[in-house]
Amino acid sequence: MASLINNQFLLHSSTAENLYFTYAQKCPIIDYHCHIEAKDIAQNTVFRTITQLWLSGDHYKWRLMRSAGVDEKYITGDASDHDKFIAWAGVIEKAIGNPLYHWTNLELVRYFNINEPLTSANAESVWEKTTEILSSESFTAKSLIERSNVELLCTTDDPIDDLRWHKIIADDPLFKTVVLPAFRPDRIVDIERGGFVNYLQSLGKSSGVEIMDWDDLKKALRIRLKHFEDHGCRLADHGIERLVFEETSDDDANRILIQRISHPKQRLTDEEIAKFKTAILIFFASEYQERNWTMQLHFGCRRDNNEAAYRNLGINTGYDTISGVGNFVEPLANFMSILTMIGKLPRMIIYSLNPNDNPLIDTLIGCFQDGSCAMKIQHGAAWWFNDNLNGMKAHLRSLAEQSYLPGFVGMLTDSRSFLSYTRHEYFRRILCDFIGDLVDRGEFTKNMEVLGSIVTDICYNNALKMFSDEVKG
Amino acid sequence: MASLINNQFLLHSSTAENLYFTYAQKCPIIDYHCHIEAKDIAQNTVFRTITQLWLSGDHYKWRLMRSAGVDEKYITGDASDHDKFIAWAGVIEKAIGNPLYHWTNLELVRYFNINEPLTSANAESVWEKTTEILSSESFTAKSLIERSNVELLCTTDDPIDDLRWHKIIADDPLFKTVVLPAFRPDRIVDIERGGFVNYLQSLGKSSGVEIMDWDDLKKALRIRLKHFEDHGCRLADHGIERLVFEETSDDDANRILIQRISHPKQRLTDEEIAKFKTAILIFFASEYQERNWTMQLHFGCRRDNNEAAYRNLGINTGYDTISGVGNFVEPLANFMSILTMIGKLPRMIIYSLNPNDNPLIDTLIGCFQDGSCAMKIQHGAAWWFNDNLNGMKAHLRSLAEQSYLPGFVGMLTDSRSFLSYTRHEYFRRILCDFIGDLVDRGEFTKNMEVLGSIVTDICYNNALKMFSDEVKG
Amino acid sequence: MASLINNQFLLHSSTAENLYFTYAQKCPIIDYHCHIEAKDIAQNTVFRTITQLWLSGDHYKWRLMRSAGVDEKYITGDASDHDKFIAWAGVIEKAIGNPLYHWTNLELVRYFNINEPLTSANAESVWEKTTEILSSESFTAKSLIERSNVELLCTTDDPIDDLRWHKIIADDPLFKTVVLPAFRPDRIVDIERGGFVNYLQSLGKSSGVEIMDWDDLKKALRIRLKHFEDHGCRLADHGIERLVFEETSDDDANRILIQRISHPKQRLTDEEIAKFKTAILIFFASEYQERNWTMQLHFGCRRDNNEAAYRNLGINTGYDTISGVGNFVEPLANFMSILTMIGKLPRMIIYSLNPNDNPLIDTLIGCFQDGSCAMKIQHGAAWWFNDNLNGMKAHLRSLAEQSYLPGFVGMLTDSRSFLSYTRHEYFRRILCDFIGDLVDRGEFTKNMEVLGSIVTDICYNNALKMFSDEVKG
Repeated sequence: MASLINNQFLLHSSTAENLYFTYAQKCPIIDYHCHIEAKDIAQNTVFRTITQLWLSGDHYKWRLMRSAGVDEKYITGDASDHDKFIAWAGVIEKAIGNPLYHWTNLELVRYFNINEPLTSANAESVWEKTTEILSSESFTAKSLIERSNVELLCTTDDPIDDLRWHKIIADDPLFKTVVLPAFRPDRIVDIERGGFVNYLQSLGKSSGVEIMDWDDLKKALRIRLKHFEDHGCRLADHGIERLVFEETSDDDANRILIQRISHPKQRLTDEEIAKFKTAILIFFASEYQERNWTMQLHFGCRRDNNEAAYRNLGINTGYDTISGVGNFVEPLANFMSILTMIGKLPRMIIYSLNPNDNPLIDTLIGCFQDGSCAMKIQHGAAWWFNDNLNGMKAHLRSLAEQSYLPGFVGMLTDSRSFLSYTRHEYFRRILCDFIGDLVDRGEFTKNMEVLGSIVTDICYNNALKMFSDEVKG
Repeated sequence: MASLINNQFLLHSSTAENLYFTYAQKCPIIDYHCHIEAKDIAQNTVFRTITQLWLSGDHYKWRLMRSAGVDEKYITGDASDHDKFIAWAGVIEKAIGNPLYHWTNLELVRYFNINEPLTSANAESVWEKTTEILSSESFTAKSLIERSNVELLCTTDDPIDDLRWHKIIADDPLFKTVVLPAFRPDRIVDIERGGFVNYLQSLGKSSGVEIMDWDDLKKALRIRLKHFEDHGCRLADHGIERLVFEETSDDDANRILIQRISHPKQRLTDEEIAKFKTAILIFFASEYQERNWTMQLHFGCRRDNNEAAYRNLGINTGYDTISGVGNFVEPLANFMSILTMIGKLPRMIIYSLNPNDNPLIDTLIGCFQDGSCAMKIQHGAAWWFNDNLNGMKAHLRSLAEQSYLPGFVGMLTDSRSFLSYTRHEYFRRILCDFIGDLVDRGEFTKNMEVLGSIVTDICYNNALKMFSDEVKG
Repeated sequence: MASLINNQFLLHSSTAENLYFTYAQKCPIIDYHCHIEAKDIAQNTVFRTITQLWLSGDHYKWRLMRSAGVDEKYITGDASDHDKFIAWAGVIEKAIGNPLYHWTNLELVRYFNINEPLTSANAESVWEKTTEILSSESFTAKSLIERSNVELLCTTDDPIDDLRWHKIIADDPLFKTVVLPAFRPDRIVDIERGGFVNYLQSLGKSSGVEIMDWDDLKKALRIRLKHFEDHGCRLADHGIERLVFEETSDDDANRILIQRISHPKQRLTDEEIAKFKTAILIFFASEYQERNWTMQLHFGCRRDNNEAAYRNLGINTGYDTISGVGNFVEPLANFMSILTMIGKLPRMIIYSLNPNDNPLIDTLIGCFQDGSCAMKIQHGAAWWFNDNLNGMKAHLRSLAEQSYLPGFVGMLTDSRSFLSYTRHEYFRRILCDFIGDLVDRGEFTKNMEVLGSIVTDICYNNALKMFSDEVKG
């Protein structure tokens, strides 16, 4: 069987090829948003089978297997690593048009030098070959990161995390990749959630502040922000199921927080929840702005839709979906407007899981660019369900039409896997093809210097500028 | 004038052509959702003019004629069949980019061997030629179905239908096509509608159960479900203007139903309506699951928007539109989640009339696939207003990206016309072109065995598996 | 550097080229919706620098500059015309995929005969060349309109405008372009806005009617409508932030209006606002229908999102965005339905700023076509943020699929600039390329007579029919 992943993969013109091989391919990777565990890097975890690398924890693959009619035994059940892999091969073989088909075969080529697409027919030999390579070579967390040319990597961390694994990684003089924490305080924002009050206690412990009111909370959070800052943190991440905005004040926030702490079983009203969330997000944004951090806002996801599966398998097991709930334009515009009024609008990256939101985001961010830098407010890369060929092209097209593509901060993996760095290659090929197509259709200059600088900026320089202080070497 | 409908029609690569002619074209048709009357088949209705075949009842064409400025006289008015046809020719001649242009000319070629696109200039000669053919050949309901290679056809039927026409059809040993009823109980679900209480009486009569409460209703419906099952029914269809979900119980449903029966003039609250609808849909879904039926859910349509036209012409006359109302993700997720919890989730096919819903549906169904079969929960084919070239491609692309295209149950006509089977050809050409394009762009294997099996499964096998018990020969 | 704007610009087939050069290019321009000031035409304003032509007032460009990180000084600040132009050149040079790249370079070629795309490198020489041309040639308002082959142009005017500039223009025998006012009564519809009561007084003054109640208001408005009609007005324009519909009556409207006038500080309820807006829009629509005017309805825009910028710079300075609020299908359907019931549905052009609304609008208008003319209810051209290559193609494709493209009334500039007539060329090239592509893919007849008539109708005849009574020569 011929190779699918050849030099021209996804590059449909010589302009696209020139751009990819002259500019894009050479750029180091800055993966500013992922879900890799710092512990795995610090301990330099070793992987023994391709199933461990691919199928333990990758709920993208689990969903596809369930859709193809594979029994749960071969997905999250007690089948052997070998049998799970064979089941996966039988599914991916026919998964035409699905990004997992590309990712799977890209990873086989780049990390195992296996050029044939995975099929039922070659599954056994791929199993044997990968198992052999994994036993002989050092497929460790650090080696996978380094051979992927990752210059900077940001994990996703809870505010109460002590970041000791990050310290261990930073103290390793042989490991060149910079690994920084990112601050993800969803559990502080979601005041309506079950564990909120308990979480406040953990936060109190980790910050040494007993949290009884709004001032205590801000004090505790500032201590944690400082702790993250001391470990090189440059960005925060907020995953928000439904954006809200309600006029609020420190007094409101204080009253609602005290009520929540003193009556943990009582439900807050929707208005109270909205007031608290607005207040705490304004607080966070202001802190980020002062620290020159970037604030990421994710929305458009409805999680854990299948109650039976949730009870069996817990979160992040393949039961999330794109949310159609409500309207983000109004609360997000109001949120950014108030930050502008108080002079505290930080750099932001906004993502929605709903691709219909592309033009809405791309025009909204244009209302808050202030000329202090290119694309102060970013529309983040096509994400999760949209992290595929058409999803990325739709994102690039809309951003180019409504905003300023050369200032785009570029790709992230959002991944839990150490083989996912190929998604940067995937993105870069798509980007170069997108640009090559515009050029060849006579819609933009053929000047390679201009084109090359756009490609290099999007693949590398823009992210470097945003997150660079700590980049070694 | 050259032929538009040649072998290569819509097939833009040799890969696409190979797939179409080697695999797709040969597949029999399983038209599992249409609005043909069983009576017309049983009585083997004869058609005398192309106007009768084309323009009596086809509100797609009526809309286009109104948009083009044709007087209602030539649409639903008292103009002659001849004059209506001439008016249609004048409209369709210029209808660039409209699917009716393709359907019209496909039907002329396939059923009348007329290869020139219909224009004002050739309208008279087409009228004469078709009239001659219609008078000499037997253009009857059964002959049109058989020459279209339809293996299985499902009508759409009211629960109180006695299905005698289906029995007559089944008893005809010479007619090879299997014709099954489908169960469409909208009038039971829509408790808020005017005729609800009267309809309950009809249902009572047809089932022999006097319906005074929730238990009676369920008993009556089970009798009708059994009646449909005895006539080979394998699927149900629910057309829902706006999906709702409200926590409910048998007691709630009972109370609300009794209130509706005893005070037929009184309006229920929105909450009561939602509770009843949730309860009855859970009841229906559970029954379908036990019978191994498939449950179709249609939404996203706002009907009868033009009150003046509605009073003149009634329903299904061309005044429906895509609905932008509300949010289906939350109620649909909750509905499927509860069915999963009680172990009663049936196979489902979900359709929205709003193409913006494609990615939302395709990710939502991924939360409820349980591995029992491929694509237990389906995203139905691009439907009605989306049943066109780009609508179908957008549907296929989204399904491929977010779900598992090879498991797709494929095309349906949703039509009232006996010439509409060409829409399966239309779909198959588009499918093969879509796949050929992916292959030729190097995005999927060139292996013709794999490609052929995907095409054959989508065009035939997947539907056969879902509805096959009754397929003859 | 090679020219980007050559003959083939955006025309990717010989069919497209034939259509453009044989039919489209020759058509005069009917620009039925723009924001040029009649005063500038009447006074035949002279422009001294390209910055005055391009950057004073064009908030499209301002947004892009802010997005690219340009300091406000060079945008709306006190930098010199020269320095602002140089800043613009540095931004547009890299604005790949943005319509401003095309518009900028099209305008340089067509009005200054400069064939190189604008870059940082050639900015100084372009500055010099354009300044020289501007000082030597008469780059006046009238000459720019005439050399652009504009046959008819409609401005946008407040109901209280005395239209004296229009009279001056009409009285100039040497100026061949017809310039008509358009009636834009947003300040009468938006009863909840701050200045409403004061505005009523101005309206009272301009009409000679003291407005104390609903009857007075209607009387005053009819006087203004007559005044506009006497100046050749043929269309109205309503910009609506959020469409509403509420059952209402003259009595309701009267009561609400009196309350608003007598208690100007008191806020109306949402229901009262909706009732008044419904009543006044029904009144306006009826008046338009009787006068054979066309009613434009714009929605989907959320204005002035950045409060700090609004306080600094005011409205129309680049801080508007696409609105995701609410649902327009239901209120718009109800509005048109009631007009149909009372026999007062005027010709309408409906625009949304949200491109997701395309299929919803295109199916909704199909419910209100009455056969009195082709496309009585129009879906207006891709507008503002959607006025780009993909936005226009998406609009054309959806209109063709769901409606009747040959009846489309075509392009408008919606612009404040005298160089924007190139957007008609932009649209026409895209239209011809769109049609050429369908033809070359074998999806429509190759008959050039049919194709040519479609192109000519969309570029010129359809608009002429709608607005023609006043066209000179």
